[in-house]
Amino acid sequence: MAERWLAHSIVATRGVGWARKPRLHHLTEAAQGRFHYTIGPYSEPVLTVAPGDRILIETRDAFEGAIRTERDKPSKRLRMPFVNPQNGPIMIEGAEPGDTIAVHIERMRPRGENPRGTCCMIPYFGALTGTGLTASLQPPLPEITRKIHVDEKEVRWSARVVLPYAPHIGTLSTSPEIDSINSLTPGPHGGNMDLPDMGPGSITYLPVRSPGARLFIGDAHACQGDGEVCGTAVEFASETTIRVDLIKSWALDWPRLERQDFIMTIGSARPLEDATRIAYRDLVLWMEAEYGFDRWDAYMMLSQCGRVRLGNFVDPNYTVGAGISKKYLAPEGK
Amino acid sequence: MAERWLAHSIVATRGVGWARKPRLHHLTEAAQGRFHYTIGPYSEPVLTVAPGDRILIETRDAFEGAIRTERDKPSKRLRMPFVNPQNGPIMIEGAEPGDTIAVHIERMRPRGENPRGTCCMIPYFGALTGTGLTASLQPPLPEITRKIHVDEKEVRWSARVVLPYAPHIGTLSTSPEIDSINSLTPGPHGGNMDLPDMGPGSITYLPVRSPGARLFIGDAHACQGDGEVCGTAVEFASETTIRVDLIKSWALDWPRLERQDFIMTIGSARPLEDATRIAYRDLVLWMEAEYGFDRWDAYMMLSQCGRVRLGNFVDPNYTVGAGISKKYLAPEGK
Amino acid sequence: MAERWLAHSIVATRGVGWARKPRLHHLTEAAQGRFHYTIGPYSEPVLTVAPGDRILIETRDAFEGAIRTERDKPSKRLRMPFVNPQNGPIMIEGAEPGDTIAVHIERMRPRGENPRGTCCMIPYFGALTGTGLTASLQPPLPEITRKIHVDEKEVRWSARVVLPYAPHIGTLSTSPEIDSINSLTPGPHGGNMDLPDMGPGSITYLPVRSPGARLFIGDAHACQGDGEVCGTAVEFASETTIRVDLIKSWALDWPRLERQDFIMTIGSARPLEDATRIAYRDLVLWMEAEYGFDRWDAYMMLSQCGRVRLGNFVDPNYTVGAGISKKYLAPEGK
Amino acid sequence: MAERWLAHSIVATRGVGWARKPRLHHLTEAAQGRFHYTIGPYSEPVLTVAPGDRILIETRDAFEGAIRTERDKPSKRLRMPFVNPQNGPIMIEGAEPGDTIAVHIERMRPRGENPRGTCCMIPYFGALTGTGLTASLQPPLPEITRKIHVDEKEVRWSARVVLPYAPHIGTLSTSPEIDSINSLTPGPHGGNMDLPDMGPGSITYLPVRSPGARLFIGDAHACQGDGEVCGTAVEFASETTIRVDLIKSWALDWPRLERQDFIMTIGSARPLEDATRIAYRDLVLWMEAEYGFDRWDAYMMLSQCGRVRLGNFVDPNYTVGAGISKKYLAPEGK
Repeated sequence: MAERWLAHSIVATRGVGWARKPRLHHLTEAAQGRFHYTIGPYSEPVLTVAPGDRILIETRDAFEGAIRTERDKPSKRLRMPFVNPQNGPIMIEGAEPGDTIAVHIERMRPRGENPRGTCCMIPYFGALTGTGLTASLQPPLPEITRKIHVDEKEVRWSARVVLPYAPHIGTLSTSPEIDSINSLTPGPHGGNMDLPDMGPGSITYLPVRSPGARLFIGDAHACQGDGEVCGTAVEFASETTIRVDLIKSWALDWPRLERQDFIMTIGSARPLEDATRIAYRDLVLWMEAEYGFDRWDAYMMLSQCGRVRLGNFVDPNYTVGAGISKKYLAPEGK
Repeated sequence: MAERWLAHSIVATRGVGWARKPRLHHLTEAAQGRFHYTIGPYSEPVLTVAPGDRILIETRDAFEGAIRTERDKPSKRLRMPFVNPQNGPIMIEGAEPGDTIAVHIERMRPRGENPRGTCCMIPYFGALTGTGLTASLQPPLPEITRKIHVDEKEVRWSARVVLPYAPHIGTLSTSPEIDSINSLTPGPHGGNMDLPDMGPGSITYLPVRSPGARLFIGDAHACQGDGEVCGTAVEFASETTIRVDLIKSWALDWPRLERQDFIMTIGSARPLEDATRIAYRDLVLWMEAEYGFDRWDAYMMLSQCGRVRLGNFVDPNYTVGAGISKKYLAPEGK
Repeated sequence: MAERWLAHSIVATRGVGWARKPRLHHLTEAAQGRFHYTIGPYSEPVLTVAPGDRILIETRDAFEGAIRTERDKPSKRLRMPFVNPQNGPIMIEGAEPGDTIAVHIERMRPRGENPRGTCCMIPYFGALTGTGLTASLQPPLPEITRKIHVDEKEVRWSARVVLPYAPHIGTLSTSPEIDSINSLTPGPHGGNMDLPDMGPGSITYLPVRSPGARLFIGDAHACQGDGEVCGTAVEFASETTIRVDLIKSWALDWPRLERQDFIMTIGSARPLEDATRIAYRDLVLWMEAEYGFDRWDAYMMLSQCGRVRLGNFVDPNYTVGAGISKKYLAPEGK
Repeated sequence: MAERWLAHSIVATRGVGWARKPRLHHLTEAAQGRFHYTIGPYSEPVLTVAPGDRILIETRDAFEGAIRTERDKPSKRLRMPFVNPQNGPIMIEGAEPGDTIAVHIERMRPRGENPRGTCCMIPYFGALTGTGLTASLQPPLPEITRKIHVDEKEVRWSARVVLPYAPHIGTLSTSPEIDSINSLTPGPHGGNMDLPDMGPGSITYLPVRSPGARLFIGDAHACQGDGEVCGTAVEFASETTIRVDLIKSWALDWPRLERQDFIMTIGSARPLEDATRIAYRDLVLWMEAEYGFDRWDAYMMLSQCGRVRLGNFVDPNYTVGAGISKKYLAPEGK
């Protein structure tokens, strides 16, 4: 069932387990037990897999199901920092600091009774309001909850607007070495990137900083606009199938992503230009290190053909992906 | 020759001159005479047109032709603030403060001898270097000049990489009311937005703040990546044909753009999140004012389907466009 | 009446007119006629002075007197961009691009009937509210006007709080070369810096970028906290006496300031860290160029004894001063 | 030996243990054993004290003593994230989430052989260089190490410059609820604030978010300029004596500080304006909640008399203190 381009992907070339016949693991809600709200080396593993294995994961929505009707107010139902529940940690055999793990998202299906999707305006959260960090003295925006029908074809936003089902994983992480980061914050470990490209068909590469990598995953979105401007996407509980592999001795500073048509680097920081700088610098250095470009040629060329995706500008760090089409990476003469 | 969707565009509906048979004006280099490096109400008009008229404009490249070979160093050839020369000001009859002008870019053709395209790394300019504003004490990046073949099909970046010809106008402005802004800085008046969407097939709407609007135009790019990361695009001299119209009593705070498939709002500011906030707020308010959406429905919906284009993050202000597909703007039941 | 330290100031050492017997000019409201809201090379000079001359200037308050009682709402009385009226331009004989002018503020006295001071909360202006640039969808803060007694001793803020009279000039500028910048925005030309150190006893050094320097001055504050957090200080009409001099062939990138005890560099930009970077870089380079420090020694030493003053973080650019005590600048062995 | 103003301090009024005769604890290097580089709830307590107790703490310098001579290069001697070692966690009896602990710094003495002070320029760290977050492609600044004589009177920076001994604690924290934050990053829990006001004579108030508060302390500076511009202060090993107390049911969002003359709120975020916004908002709300000011009166008044201290603008978050003189807080009629 795998897409044909995968055979030429980075993970297919360098992953230690890609050629193996994968074993399928099930990480159900019951198997998960307690979900996690902080991503670090201090939690108990729920599963250990071999490189190349597949895992079917039951994720909860970002509100952990606490917003059931449009009358449920986030300020009543949620208590910080216990939001954005994460499955994991999943241990990848053989993963050691200095390695990279690859996470291929194969499929994302909605779970549970409809309306499965939830979108909220949460007081003092979002891009067009003062927040805990961009502090103001203004009254909050209204608190609004929307419940939305989601199936594998469409997201019925309203009587007027129907959006295509375009799911992605909002939060995907390995563990930092000694820190433990709340699941709302993206960073060099991945985290709450909210990047619409991180859906089925994508491969995300994450740096291993702690033994076993300690993979966390959650925060499925049925669709999301660039920037996630109101602060939430169409949040839903999912059955997500991933395949995980291990690339030895590939030390990444920041997450990277591959799709059929392009490669992408991912930076998360504030202000937003710093996230963009991180992503573009990493892309320049990647093109130099692995695609045979001169550094300055890559820099100037990205000024002509680089593509930027705004993940979010609402989380404690903002996330930007910088990509380049694979067609421009072909060796000379091809 | 006009594209069919234009008949349903905003300017076709509301422009006072769109139904008129257009007269074609020529603004050659000779007719222009002295080019401008500051955009304001203090310069002498070079042309007056009626709403609905077409203008064929000979623009100079952003270096005003001073970079002729790959041995020409920007630091030797350029003197600030005399860069990014602008044609204009062009007066639009009947334009008064509170109105909006529409600029439909019909066609952009390269002019002059090949190699027509120029891309430079300029010391302390660009996104991956300290600059005059993001001040550092580090040595500059190397100073490099590239001359690039450009024709109406392709941009031959290097022996290895050929990019499609995808031209756009980098700098498009009306005059501020009393200020005069250098042509490197984008803002509420338009300016140096460097937005790749602003090419042939686009209509840009600009607020009129001074009698006659005083349209300035320049800075043609044969192609440009999102963000213009090294600080320059493939800069070239162009023959650009535009059609200009006037929409009375439509007072914009910031520029807007329309293409066949989407509408877009444009913000320019620092830090980059502020540019994005400006654009998204304006899009929410536009959807509320003219497309029949409830404000909060628009805000939450853009969180699911808004699209962001990074214009530049290298100029004195950074530019972001926030767009929405026209298909989601259709009235209920259509 | 001059303070004794002035004899050892930079201007005393390098100014071409400091040793001259100064002539006193009067720039009354009547002599000024029309005030200016944009700072550039396009306005008619109101006065020409010789280096070393003194000028007694009648400034208007930042609202140009339009806020007369606590019932006057800024949103009703003010129209952008016609705020922060400036006296000038004043031409300094012999000033040419590449030179610097020095402005010694000798005295600032309140003018007019009490209550002379005005402080307002203006909708969508200030640090703890969304603004036109940090765009939000929240309701504005309340609109409040305060009229405050000001005399040369004190500022009677309220029955409970009396503040000392600590006046300074909020907006002090030379003209840019070809741009014209509204009087609300600080930059390399000076402008609306709102720096509390810029009061009587200070000398401000401003770069000359246009013939005659074209000095503008206005925006007197009876006192101001660091950052001017609500957006306005205790704004008042003043009688301000300055002495102006000219330093030939001293080309500054950004304004500088001298007081009895310290020297200071001034940066204005967004985000606020960029303003701070500009100021500190300029201070390092100044210590290297004129005080005999090794560049890296200066950089590391400022990390131990540099002092930062936040001017404003409410204007279109934010302003920061970075200073060092003169006692650390003494040559070795002194 | 306690200063007289302490009898009127917040902690004297509200601390549960201030009236007790304090017991003195010694937290020597040996008693500490392993130092910590991450601040959270997952480490073993090294000491438990009662509210009101005193602790004499042997802190290590930020490089944990690894930089011994001026020939030692940070890039060779340090490995991230194992820098800025912290003593603790110290448990305060009775401290529960929703409470606040007070840390009065009584005295700071240098320890060890001279030269005790160390200042470094670390590649890609500091304010006037690109960094891991403000990513650039430029070469780094030179790597320089300075060893500096420190005693309880002075810091002998160089033959030319002697600075006063003005010590403070750079990093002071309670534990987050479930996260663990590296000791380089300041935030709502305190952390690496690098605020020069946090020296002997100061009382810092920190929110309790985990049982026992879990106090961490380290990073003594013999002196530091505003902003810590080169990235490091005069780092030294100290013998620091603190007195700790507990204020029940006082829930802070961010740290606060009190000295004889003023109170201060502390924000840490990026960009720098957000840190300043956090601090000023908290100060407004504090004046409203506990000093009898109307909210808008406090906001407008701070615009006239607020004082800002830049802690650092080099760490992963930047830190700003906003303060007001106690003389303006006196009740009406006093």
